[in-house]
Amino acid sequence: MTKYFTEEGSVEAVQARMGDDINPRLKQVMASLITHLHSFAKDVELTQEEWDTAVEFLTKTGQICSDVRQEYILLSDVLGFSMLVDAINNRRPPGATENTVYGPFHVLNAPIRQMGDNISLDGKGERCLYEGRVIDLHGEPIEGACVDVWSDNADGFYDVQQPDIQPQWNNRGRFITGKDGTYRFYGIKPVSYPIPDDGPVGKMLTALGRHPYRPAHMHYLVTASGYQRIVTHTFVGDDGYINDDAVFGVKETLVAPFEHVNDGDTIWRSPFDFVMVPEGDTTA
Amino acid sequence: MTKYFTEEGSVEAVQARMGDDINPRLKQVMASLITHLHSFAKDVELTQEEWDTAVEFLTKTGQICSDVRQEYILLSDVLGFSMLVDAINNRRPPGATENTVYGPFHVLNAPIRQMGDNISLDGKGERCLYEGRVIDLHGEPIEGACVDVWSDNADGFYDVQQPDIQPQWNNRGRFITGKDGTYRFYGIKPVSYPIPDDGPVGKMLTALGRHPYRPAHMHYLVTASGYQRIVTHTFVGDDGYINDDAVFGVKETLVAPFEHVNDGDTIWRSPFDFVMVPEGDTTA
Ligand SMILES: [Fe+2]
Ligand SMILES: [Fe+2]
Repeated sequence: MTKYFTEEGSVEAVQARMGDDINPRLKQVMASLITHLHSFAKDVELTQEEWDTAVEFLTKTGQICSDVRQEYILLSDVLGFSMLVDAINNRRPPGATENTVYGPFHVLNAPIRQMGDNISLDGKGERCLYEGRVIDLHGEPIEGACVDVWSDNADGFYDVQQPDIQPQWNNRGRFITGKDGTYRFYGIKPVSYPIPDDGPVGKMLTALGRHPYRPAHMHYLVTASGYQRIVTHTFVGDDGYINDDAVFGVKETLVAPFEHVNDGDTIWRSPFDFVMVPEGDTTA
Repeated sequence: MTKYFTEEGSVEAVQARMGDDINPRLKQVMASLITHLHSFAKDVELTQEEWDTAVEFLTKTGQICSDVRQEYILLSDVLGFSMLVDAINNRRPPGATENTVYGPFHVLNAPIRQMGDNISLDGKGERCLYEGRVIDLHGEPIEGACVDVWSDNADGFYDVQQPDIQPQWNNRGRFITGKDGTYRFYGIKPVSYPIPDDGPVGKMLTALGRHPYRPAHMHYLVTASGYQRIVTHTFVGDDGYINDDAVFGVKETLVAPFEHVNDGDTIWRSPFDFVMVPEGDTTA
């Protein structure tokens, strides 16, 4: 074997260059990354022109990032990579509420609301009652759980996307469960919306024959001391995009009922229980 | 099989989303990329924190790019990916001159010089005579070949890196062969130099226990009508970094003789023949 780089020995040549005293996990991750990246180039016999195009794409994807835009997370999302990393790191026993992608629109420290409050502050959209319980795998209620919720408005925008138009904290709030573990609040039935598609990732989606839409969903971050946090959504099952979420966030168990009720201003009711798993339990 | 994303079915879920009417080559390349990226995450069970760190790295690598800096090419170079793509796309019959990485320092339209001219304009460094022939696989001389050459100066910088200090076109020039296919010019014996290491890629190299240096080399772009262009270097064999070029550019056949001559001001002589292959011939 030559001591220099060869097409056949490309992986070994690069792996061999890593030092002996480096972080062993970094070494493991990079060795695997090199293996898979080189396999990719060999499998498709990547052309120089294609790689030049890819380098330009990667560059532009970084350059469009700012304090309020993260195009690389978007890229990760549309390649199913964000969902995969989330799945690998949040394996839970059957019956537990599953995770899905965090998304870029969570805001820390939303107002703590009282059970039964309405988080929709702009008067738009179809009012929906969200209610259910935060319980453990045995069905026992969890007291003091924080149910942090957020959704878009009836026009498909989160409040942070329209800071000049929407009231602050529109369609956001935190609810703390009592002894019975129940939660209950009013919001709107959310609507589907496109992920930002005016950048490199949007162009890529178009080239792949894909649309940028996400099916309507309510975001939840559920935390309780001693339990694994749940980062998830509930989805509107009859949404036209339910089978082709641009970021692959839908899971069977996360499609929630949205029942027609027509109770005064309230048109919908969406019951959903959150089932939490103790920290450290990764039985899949 | 669920119609939604699962950890096990992640690759198929993402691949299935691509349209039927898109560019078939794009579809093939992306299907392979998705397969290998997901395999990577699964093989190492990538953590969320690691992926967050990677996203930040990818973002910064894009953001440091400018008209005069291409950090993504640098990343590709240090992962051996540039050399791999170059190898895949420039397989040649035995005896032909091999390619290596282009590098970022070529400049179009360097002055056409006469055979025997000196390209080193700053008076620094150890003078070296470069000479040889441009021939085909049968040893026949190629007339009208353009030998476009560039190297760093004795301080390890290309002229474009020091536009205020170095004379323009220092250590650059183009030479056109005559009937006998020979070329002959004076330059300096080049010196090893670090690739730019003050950005994200430099930090990565440090974390991997790697240095940023390239062994000394003279760059060549050899073109002749009807022949495959050669993008290559010749390397100084006794350079301390010859066995661990930061970008994996060294090949056995590209290590050139640098013979001590002491002929007046000239201290070295580096003979090297360029063997060209007709366009379309990819017999490896
Ligand atoms: Fe969302
Ligand atoms: Fe160079």
